[in-house]
Amino acid sequence: MTWIELDRSSGTPLYRQVYKSYRTKILNGELQSGERIPSTRELSTQLQVSRNIIVEAYEQLFAEGYIEGRHGSGTFVAEGTYLESRHQTVSKLETELIKKISSEQHDLVDFRPGIPALSLFPRKIWMQLAQQECTHAPDEAWGYGKPEGLLKLRTILARYLLRTRGVVCHPDQLIVTTGATQSISLITKLLLTHTSDVILEDPITHEIHTIFTQPGARLCPVPVDQQGMITQDLPLHTQPGFVYVTPSHQYPLGGVLPIQRRVQLINFARTTDCYIVEDDYDSEFRYEGAPISSLQGLDPERVIYIGTFSKILSPALRIGYLILPPTLINRGRHLKWLTDLHTPTWEQMILTRFIEEGHLERHIAKMKKIYRKRRNYLVGCLTDNFGDQITVLGHSTGLHLIAEFLNIQFTAQRLEELEQNGVRVYSVEIHAIEKGKHLQRIILGYGNLSEEQIKKGVQRLASILK
Amino acid sequence: MTWIELDRSSGTPLYRQVYKSYRTKILNGELQSGERIPSTRELSTQLQVSRNIIVEAYEQLFAEGYIEGRHGSGTFVAEGTYLESRHQTVSKLETELIKKISSEQHDLVDFRPGIPALSLFPRKIWMQLAQQECTHAPDEAWGYGKPEGLLKLRTILARYLLRTRGVVCHPDQLIVTTGATQSISLITKLLLTHTSDVILEDPITHEIHTIFTQPGARLCPVPVDQQGMITQDLPLHTQPGFVYVTPSHQYPLGGVLPIQRRVQLINFARTTDCYIVEDDYDSEFRYEGAPISSLQGLDPERVIYIGTFSKILSPALRIGYLILPPTLINRGRHLKWLTDLHTPTWEQMILTRFIEEGHLERHIAKMKKIYRKRRNYLVGCLTDNFGDQITVLGHSTGLHLIAEFLNIQFTAQRLEELEQNGVRVYSVEIHAIEKGKHLQRIILGYGNLSEEQIKKGVQRLASILK
Repeated sequence: MTWIELDRSSGTPLYRQVYKSYRTKILNGELQSGERIPSTRELSTQLQVSRNIIVEAYEQLFAEGYIEGRHGSGTFVAEGTYLESRHQTVSKLETELIKKISSEQHDLVDFRPGIPALSLFPRKIWMQLAQQECTHAPDEAWGYGKPEGLLKLRTILARYLLRTRGVVCHPDQLIVTTGATQSISLITKLLLTHTSDVILEDPITHEIHTIFTQPGARLCPVPVDQQGMITQDLPLHTQPGFVYVTPSHQYPLGGVLPIQRRVQLINFARTTDCYIVEDDYDSEFRYEGAPISSLQGLDPERVIYIGTFSKILSPALRIGYLILPPTLINRGRHLKWLTDLHTPTWEQMILTRFIEEGHLERHIAKMKKIYRKRRNYLVGCLTDNFGDQITVLGHSTGLHLIAEFLNIQFTAQRLEELEQNGVRVYSVEIHAIEKGKHLQRIILGYGNLSEEQIKKGVQRLASILK
Repeated sequence: MTWIELDRSSGTPLYRQVYKSYRTKILNGELQSGERIPSTRELSTQLQVSRNIIVEAYEQLFAEGYIEGRHGSGTFVAEGTYLESRHQTVSKLETELIKKISSEQHDLVDFRPGIPALSLFPRKIWMQLAQQECTHAPDEAWGYGKPEGLLKLRTILARYLLRTRGVVCHPDQLIVTTGATQSISLITKLLLTHTSDVILEDPITHEIHTIFTQPGARLCPVPVDQQGMITQDLPLHTQPGFVYVTPSHQYPLGGVLPIQRRVQLINFARTTDCYIVEDDYDSEFRYEGAPISSLQGLDPERVIYIGTFSKILSPALRIGYLILPPTLINRGRHLKWLTDLHTPTWEQMILTRFIEEGHLERHIAKMKKIYRKRRNYLVGCLTDNFGDQITVLGHSTGLHLIAEFLNIQFTAQRLEELEQNGVRVYSVEIHAIEKGKHLQRIILGYGNLSEEQIKKGVQRLASILK
């Protein structure tokens, strides 16, 4: 008699326990092919359970091919069911993979760049709109959508971008993506092969180095100064797939590309017949003057435009957009479809209302005031603590600035030391393609810090660095 | 005097209108480099607007590099600002790209497969959970998440999958994705190069042919019968990246892979030392017996598992998951990060509650009854209308079945004819790698159709095909 242990207190139904026991024993060879197993009546008596339970278990085993009936003879283990078990216990992972919860200091001041003020995400309005959309959306809204995204959202977005960023596009040029990273991925798939060159600023977001080189493309870095990419250094003897720029607020150094350089850039792209990719990630928060008009508006057929709501609203929403020149639209939509079909519909519906009803602009205006105040406070603290040992750069826009120190190099050890002392700052050097030129600079994000935290953070910096 | 037209009724602020006029004229050369422009006082008088407005416009132009002041001399157009305008009016798109709204018949019966009953998406519960999560989530929930997804969701999902699908995995093996398509994309990036072979069922979802061949991999099709992939035909002399299978409900033909073939498949993978990718897209809806245990549970270190909530809940949510063997976890997470960082957080939070509180299982149980009823009704209508002219296949599971017709070939013209007559059915042949063997078969999805629609649709089929 095969021993089958049943646990009546377990949440698993009894028939399933019987099924699993037999399945395991058949797979591991404890019950051999051709071996007879008890009839349902016999097993029901042996295990003291109702015959129905055994019948149900046997039906499952039969359906899956583990057992077969031979008329008049009984029930037997089927052929070809032995599987040598090789898998190690998955609990090995418990020790190998679960990193100890790092002794995350609860009051570590984290100057992480690119994070908006999370406590000020407009939850209430977002929730109300979400509720209304969920309740009133037609059934079709819960089915498969189109890769480019809702027409209504694209229409409203195109209008909004024209008005606020000087972006010139037809709604059909827009694809609603799950953020800037996906937009960059899509462009990479669209335009780069292993023989491509990509021209880009140096330094520039280090994940982008990786994304662009994934298909084997070659990076052609162009240095950056306080006015962004030094366009007169654009390399003449290349056939680039595209030039990737952050002209509104160079990342990370923060320069704003002036019109002369924008003209040079576009002329360069026309001469080499390549695209420009404009990544416009936080230009809404410009603290001196109105937002700089986009590069895209100067040549909509040549400039691909990437936008995101991660800094304006919340990175957790994962929503952004991509504006493609007309010739790339169909391929772009097709690629988006093959990537993840489309961006979640509900978020698109909420966002449409959020923009349409003016909440977005009000939110941006409100946040701009708050961020300006935080920026000013940070600059003040830095000046108070470091005086002329420090130069502040790239602070005209966005959610971060650069602090350049006269006599300090920010090596990995130095950064670790600072973190041990309760303050986390971010290296510029990690984003550099040509190394060694930015060791004295750090990125300080202030979007998600209160003035109290800013003050504490800078004091901790001073206690180590001075 | 340069004519600048101001429209006081326009929504655009006056200072912005002044700015834009000057910008345009400078860019297109109407105002030349070095040319003097009016002082703020002069222009304010000319345009009859307050001087503040002109001052603001000029500050913007100055900040962007369009104009410069020469002390004592006045204000001048800066050098290097001329940009030959080449872009055609984007309105060309109006005619080229906007396809006429197709004369979509409002009562077209669409047998689209893979669509759940959209009107039965549990909006109310989803909304309630969404509201609670939005209100009570900590601020950090609105910041950047981790590529693998929320730990709580992965833990609950791992537990749920073990119980209902026999999937054996540690929560750290899970990555929450934006659906099966993204999971397949990620696996492709993880495992395939241009020298890879991919073994797959034939026929199989046609988009998958495209996704796998994108990096240049070669498809090695294995034919399918009523029990899924014919595993004895697995090609011996290949070094495949992986074998891709839909063992719970072969797509599109619907067979369920029995244990003997599962054993053969795993032994094949062990011999050739390759992975198996199990795409388990609708196995919750099994109408005869309990759900078939997953292939993954037989060899968790070799089988990659793809799951989705598109059929169980809604395709619009764009949420699914990927279970990787331990050795692929780190690379998988890194790739997800470089693709789109992470899956939207709010949906993850809602889904966690939805599963944890038992709503998912109740929903599945409820929908299973409804789908079974619809399936039975469809089979009944087909039998009533077509008798022995038709064989129904693959109907033990899921949201679609196959109708095989004795004497009819479903060419593109035949499908078009049917659509003109108010019924849309889906070709099997389009999913075939080896062509010509499935012309007499069509896919009929019934998940999103009422009995009335099913009846009407089959009658329309009969009116054309008989």
